[in-house]
Amino acid sequence: MAKRRHPRQAQAPSDPGARHTMLNRRRLLTHGLTLLGVGSLAASAVPPAQGAAPPETPPWMQVPGAPFRAYGMPATYESTVIRTNIQSRPGTTGSGASRTPLEALEGMLTPSGLHFERHHSGVPDIDPTQHRLLIHGLVQRPLVFTIEALLRYPMISRVHFLECAGNSQLMYGATPPSLTCGQVHGLVSCSEWTGVPLRLLLAEAGVDPSASWLLAEGADAAAMSRSVPIAKAMDDAFLALYQNGERLRPENGYPVRLFLPGYEGNMNVKWLRRLQVTATPTMTKDETSKYTDLQANGTALMFTFPMDVKSLITRPSPGLTLQGPGRYEVSGIAWSGRGAITQVDVSVDGGHTWATAVLSAPVLPQALTRFRLAWQWHGAPTVLKSRATDDTGAVQPTRDALVAAHGTNVLYHYNAIQAWQVAATGEVTHVYA
Amino acid sequence: MAKRRHPRQAQAPSDPGARHTMLNRRRLLTHGLTLLGVGSLAASAVPPAQGAAPPETPPWMQVPGAPFRAYGMPATYESTVIRTNIQSRPGTTGSGASRTPLEALEGMLTPSGLHFERHHSGVPDIDPTQHRLLIHGLVQRPLVFTIEALLRYPMISRVHFLECAGNSQLMYGATPPSLTCGQVHGLVSCSEWTGVPLRLLLAEAGVDPSASWLLAEGADAAAMSRSVPIAKAMDDAFLALYQNGERLRPENGYPVRLFLPGYEGNMNVKWLRRLQVTATPTMTKDETSKYTDLQANGTALMFTFPMDVKSLITRPSPGLTLQGPGRYEVSGIAWSGRGAITQVDVSVDGGHTWATAVLSAPVLPQALTRFRLAWQWHGAPTVLKSRATDDTGAVQPTRDALVAAHGTNVLYHYNAIQAWQVAATGEVTHVYA
Repeated sequence: MAKRRHPRQAQAPSDPGARHTMLNRRRLLTHGLTLLGVGSLAASAVPPAQGAAPPETPPWMQVPGAPFRAYGMPATYESTVIRTNIQSRPGTTGSGASRTPLEALEGMLTPSGLHFERHHSGVPDIDPTQHRLLIHGLVQRPLVFTIEALLRYPMISRVHFLECAGNSQLMYGATPPSLTCGQVHGLVSCSEWTGVPLRLLLAEAGVDPSASWLLAEGADAAAMSRSVPIAKAMDDAFLALYQNGERLRPENGYPVRLFLPGYEGNMNVKWLRRLQVTATPTMTKDETSKYTDLQANGTALMFTFPMDVKSLITRPSPGLTLQGPGRYEVSGIAWSGRGAITQVDVSVDGGHTWATAVLSAPVLPQALTRFRLAWQWHGAPTVLKSRATDDTGAVQPTRDALVAAHGTNVLYHYNAIQAWQVAATGEVTHVYA
Repeated sequence: MAKRRHPRQAQAPSDPGARHTMLNRRRLLTHGLTLLGVGSLAASAVPPAQGAAPPETPPWMQVPGAPFRAYGMPATYESTVIRTNIQSRPGTTGSGASRTPLEALEGMLTPSGLHFERHHSGVPDIDPTQHRLLIHGLVQRPLVFTIEALLRYPMISRVHFLECAGNSQLMYGATPPSLTCGQVHGLVSCSEWTGVPLRLLLAEAGVDPSASWLLAEGADAAAMSRSVPIAKAMDDAFLALYQNGERLRPENGYPVRLFLPGYEGNMNVKWLRRLQVTATPTMTKDETSKYTDLQANGTALMFTFPMDVKSLITRPSPGLTLQGPGRYEVSGIAWSGRGAITQVDVSVDGGHTWATAVLSAPVLPQALTRFRLAWQWHGAPTVLKSRATDDTGAVQPTRDALVAAHGTNVLYHYNAIQAWQVAATGEVTHVYA
């Protein structure tokens, strides 16, 4: 009978009560007229009596609405959709991180107000007319730029994700965290960034042939600093001045940040004040005491710049309880610091079988990519997983494989397949599976 | 001499003092290392003494920064970047429009807080748990949907512009308005929208073969209503639930709006409460007393749905005075309700010669497309223009051609080429040219 209802399903379940049906979503959208006509979702709509009048005029139609606002904000009914601040150092101001509520979002973009934050000494209050950017070191001609000067240069716009190297860190722990998807994995966000290609400015300064690195320093109280290979600076690096159409938000580096597509979040130095061209990496505190990857054997990896291929199912996920058996859409995000996502596979049976999800266009390099797959849940407990592949051929590893390769002392670069357990009650929880 | 400095320019000026140089920007970005090395922009950077120390530690590095925020906002230094509210009916609440400050933005997206507004009786305060959407009329099975039910359907994400049919209305006037680009043309914005294809819901209701139209009604106090061809509803129409990643903003239809890619803004009915399937258009007040295009001969065009191909140079534009001769980037937006932008030509000599601008990828159908072109201004007065072409072959008309075709009584669908006059002082003003 399930077969009659879903003739185009990817896998015919032998026992619809025990297994789960994945639907070929492209066909569903094309031929959905008949498929959805008898689907279980119809139970979610309330059929009125034939010829019924529209719902009673609601109270908000009986009075004039609110006036215009100079700058809009979300609905008050969405006041729980906020960043989760996890303070890493109690007693300090603005040292720690706040995470994007991924489970509440859709599409590829993150609203700027919900972009994750990772600060080492809070958000500086920078007067853009007083801010200066110095380019010096191994250059023929040291230069100081005002923001007004930077705004006159040729610009590019790019949609890119940013991910903190420490995202998903709790997943290295012995037991899976009892938190939402965003609270565990929400140190990743995606925006349209606009700014000036760094190579144009370096060319004006005249880089010495002996130069191999840059030191990038922020104008926060921590003077957060990282070393960047000159090859990246000359390739796709840019100085971001705009985020999602408007000037950068303060917590994202206003008035100017370095942007290194695909690289660890903190290398994209915010509040950028200085680029020193150097022969060697500077070995700053931020790349020696932090942001190195301690392996099981006690050695540490340094300068592990690109963020690896990764994906997450955001709906359903912990906190979003399924309302009984029926049809659902599995929706999630995938990304890779090394290029574009080419495929995301989804399993609704704990990894025994996989189906290819639909990627929402445009699929852009180093950007979040939304994937979706229709799913018929028959009510039995199960485990959901997603597995991304990028255009370098890299495939997201299992947690077992990641831990076997790097141990559990490492705090960074966690990119393993995430498993969500679905109980018969519809409750969704973290599980290592 | 200009020729030596800009060997790859699109047009060699015979007299650099009197004419203006357009640069092939793609080549500039590729070969910019040498070109910019001697460019006049270097004057905007302040060369410090050789080996100079970085700028003195600014005050904001001497104290810890601000703490985390649950939901971020723009920098206080950007407090002038707001929507301009032009009240169309003094004394009424929320009846009128507020415009996007296009001249302050970059890239293809509009931040949701700055998306234009056009309300007919303000912004209703709708409790999403109480809101209902009715589909009825010529259907086999009338249905009522809760928002929770809609959120379970398969979704799509699309980057699309919205433009009010009345955008740029002042340009039909006898003299050009002394306002900013956004104050005249800012009833256009662009977001990533996510929602449910309308054809899936109509299929569940079972549309009668005799049906040709839909009536879409909003839950505002004006019950704003428009008729929509059923063919559009079955093609690319969707019910938008998310905007730029998060749930819709109240002024953009929270909790659900109709979205009709490329069609007049007000047909994308906000706060959608009712879709009635009909045999004929309903001839509502909002498509008879308003949103018809009065021609010079006294007749009016009705149901002029798609917004035509259009472009604007946003920088420079009125209020953004050029700071003396030198190199600038001409930056603007182009869009078409009929498809994707294929080309934007820019003239820096009042329309005598044109150069093709670079389009910023991704170029998406029915979306704002950013174009850019490097420009060497030699200081003489001139006029800037942009002219867009879409993939149907439609080309943006001159103002003279538009007025000759439709007269000046019409209030809607103004899409003519915009001219900005640049004075020798660098001041930029509106001009009919």
